[in-house]
Amino acid sequence: MKNLKGAAILGQSGGPTSVINASAAGVFIEALKQENITAVYGAAHGIKGILDENFYDISKEDLYELELLKNTPSSAIGSVRYKLKPLKKDPSDYERLLEVFKKYNIRYFFYNGGNDSMDTCNKISKYFKKSGWDCNVVGVPKTIDNDLYGTDHCPGYGSAAKYVATTLMELYHDATVYNTPMVTVVEVMGRNAGWLTAAAQLAVSKGQGPDLIYLPEVVFDYDQFYADVEEVVKRKTKAIIVVSEGIKDKDGKYVPEHYSSLSTDSFGHAQLGGTAAILAEQIKERLNVKVRSIEFSLLQRSAAHLASKVDVREAYMAGVKAVRAAVKGTTDKMVGFERVSSNPYKIKYKLVPLAKAANTEKKVPAEWILPNGKGLTQDYVDYALPLIQGDDKAPLVDGLPRFANLKKVFVEKK
Amino acid sequence: MKNLKGAAILGQSGGPTSVINASAAGVFIEALKQENITAVYGAAHGIKGILDENFYDISKEDLYELELLKNTPSSAIGSVRYKLKPLKKDPSDYERLLEVFKKYNIRYFFYNGGNDSMDTCNKISKYFKKSGWDCNVVGVPKTIDNDLYGTDHCPGYGSAAKYVATTLMELYHDATVYNTPMVTVVEVMGRNAGWLTAAAQLAVSKGQGPDLIYLPEVVFDYDQFYADVEEVVKRKTKAIIVVSEGIKDKDGKYVPEHYSSLSTDSFGHAQLGGTAAILAEQIKERLNVKVRSIEFSLLQRSAAHLASKVDVREAYMAGVKAVRAAVKGTTDKMVGFERVSSNPYKIKYKLVPLAKAANTEKKVPAEWILPNGKGLTQDYVDYALPLIQGDDKAPLVDGLPRFANLKKVFVEKK
Repeated sequence: MKNLKGAAILGQSGGPTSVINASAAGVFIEALKQENITAVYGAAHGIKGILDENFYDISKEDLYELELLKNTPSSAIGSVRYKLKPLKKDPSDYERLLEVFKKYNIRYFFYNGGNDSMDTCNKISKYFKKSGWDCNVVGVPKTIDNDLYGTDHCPGYGSAAKYVATTLMELYHDATVYNTPMVTVVEVMGRNAGWLTAAAQLAVSKGQGPDLIYLPEVVFDYDQFYADVEEVVKRKTKAIIVVSEGIKDKDGKYVPEHYSSLSTDSFGHAQLGGTAAILAEQIKERLNVKVRSIEFSLLQRSAAHLASKVDVREAYMAGVKAVRAAVKGTTDKMVGFERVSSNPYKIKYKLVPLAKAANTEKKVPAEWILPNGKGLTQDYVDYALPLIQGDDKAPLVDGLPRFANLKKVFVEKK
Repeated sequence: MKNLKGAAILGQSGGPTSVINASAAGVFIEALKQENITAVYGAAHGIKGILDENFYDISKEDLYELELLKNTPSSAIGSVRYKLKPLKKDPSDYERLLEVFKKYNIRYFFYNGGNDSMDTCNKISKYFKKSGWDCNVVGVPKTIDNDLYGTDHCPGYGSAAKYVATTLMELYHDATVYNTPMVTVVEVMGRNAGWLTAAAQLAVSKGQGPDLIYLPEVVFDYDQFYADVEEVVKRKTKAIIVVSEGIKDKDGKYVPEHYSSLSTDSFGHAQLGGTAAILAEQIKERLNVKVRSIEFSLLQRSAAHLASKVDVREAYMAGVKAVRAAVKGTTDKMVGFERVSSNPYKIKYKLVPLAKAANTEKKVPAEWILPNGKGLTQDYVDYALPLIQGDDKAPLVDGLPRFANLKKVFVEKK
């Protein structure tokens, strides 16, 4: 909690989003302005870059390129999936981190990621404190899954939700164009929480959305599912279905697991196809109808051309606020958003204890899921709509996005 | 070739594009202005709608909604895949069409589609002429495949190419974010012509594209392919590969056919997975590397939010020009584009005999394909870049596209 003087480092961690770089821009641009911050580093591939002493000197970058980061998808300085072992089990990573922090006099540590990243932040912060190394550690939230506890929503979610809703509206037009029966099954990311799949309801609210939406929060019942689809096909000849990749049956089995366990024959299917592909194939066999399965895959988390302006701004400001808070002596916290009102939309930035953010997964509230489990309520729509407002994308050069082009000058190893 | 007075009808046919409705807007708005056109109809589901006497009265629509069609993806009045049988084999459809045209005094027939649609146009036009029914028939080109003969390019291609290039640039950022080996295989539409897959080269030209591009114009060699991928993975640890769904080996077999013929076991794979999924699985087995396959699927032809402004304008104007030409007495022609210059980009509209447009498939010229068969030349880039310029998308309401909302008032059956 001290007013420290020294270097600052940012790491990006976990799955990318359209706006994780906007938070990086916020951290970098604000940190470069701060008197107490003597150097600004970007860790190459998150915590791994710190362990390996691979970090970039951000002062060498042009401000214009740092500004372009706001609209550049994915993690410009590289991401990582690296979970620190519990200290008691293996202290080597912690010791090494401390060594590196001391060597470069790093007094500010910013980590941008989801639950796991906040957990990493928290562990490091605790260890440093115990070791007597003064370093202010502030987490910056990021996840298209929107499942971080202690914040109204997460940077990255708004843009991914906008992608899901917009694309589903477009698909609605395509999937209903012929006067022949057709079932389209769309798979959306979200292993445990259905927030991103829920965004399909925004398309429904415009009358151009799917007929059925299945979240991982609701136990997936195969018989009911096939009956639901059949009912829609009979009524409308065309059905559009959105499923979360994380839907599970009562035994907790995901769709590919379920079908691979039924017979060894179908194991190949399970390996190759995702949830949507498998369900579409089953529907084809059962209803003898034309099917198409679509996976939004990486597109839903990297479509910066469809980013929400609100999301870009908030992601950027989360980075700025993290730096300002750290410089004022804050540590062991994550930046979060508190919603003051939805209409007009207004939020307050706040600071959430890392421990709280790290260990709880925020799911879609049961009361926002329709009683039949196949859609969301107006409360969800009211919650989500403000987050997808406005456009903010990279300038076009030759009709294509001009993304940030960082020099990535490595800091000389000491 | 006469100056006729009577009703006009438009049909939309074949696979949708982002701008097929822009052409419809051009036809409708221009036709409503013409004195010699006494009624403007939209055929529900193309030729099928005419056979069934299901068509909409376009004069009942608000002009504002017709304008919104410019930015509404897919076929607003419904599409169809319906191939007329040769007249000698079965004249019933032709006779029925003539009956309907006479009943409603339809003197102008506009058909918006690809090769098959131009063939339909041509057959109908010939039959009407033979039967003594004066009707000016003008085709409006449309296809993301860009394979229509007699025109520099086709409406729909520019927007789909922009989608492919932009999305690949975004995927480039996502697929290279971890410091672990990873192969991403992306599948692009195009059964016989590789124009859309070629658009991947636009991303390459920005330094943010795939490592390898495979078109259906080049015989696909599996051994060479796996060797190519291995070389890239060894050199860069990460590889991004773009394949056309239409790549074929020397026996003319598509990838799913090839693998399904190898063993019955893999038949399930072939059914479920598309080209990219199968190749990715093979790469995983051979190189023991993490893989991801992505199919652009319907997204590449319906992503109106990423439409090219040039494409929207040209698609609209193609509709307008078709009406103007028909009213002046033109028949049996398709509107086409002649490129005057690429830099600055300038085109002239022209009229191509339907017979010419109908029966030839335009492939990517061999001299635009790199000698190693894994990419395109600068000549291709110079050709394609002008077609993807500028943005033109639907206005946003609640952060989501406000697409056209037609009343679709059916014309009372006579």
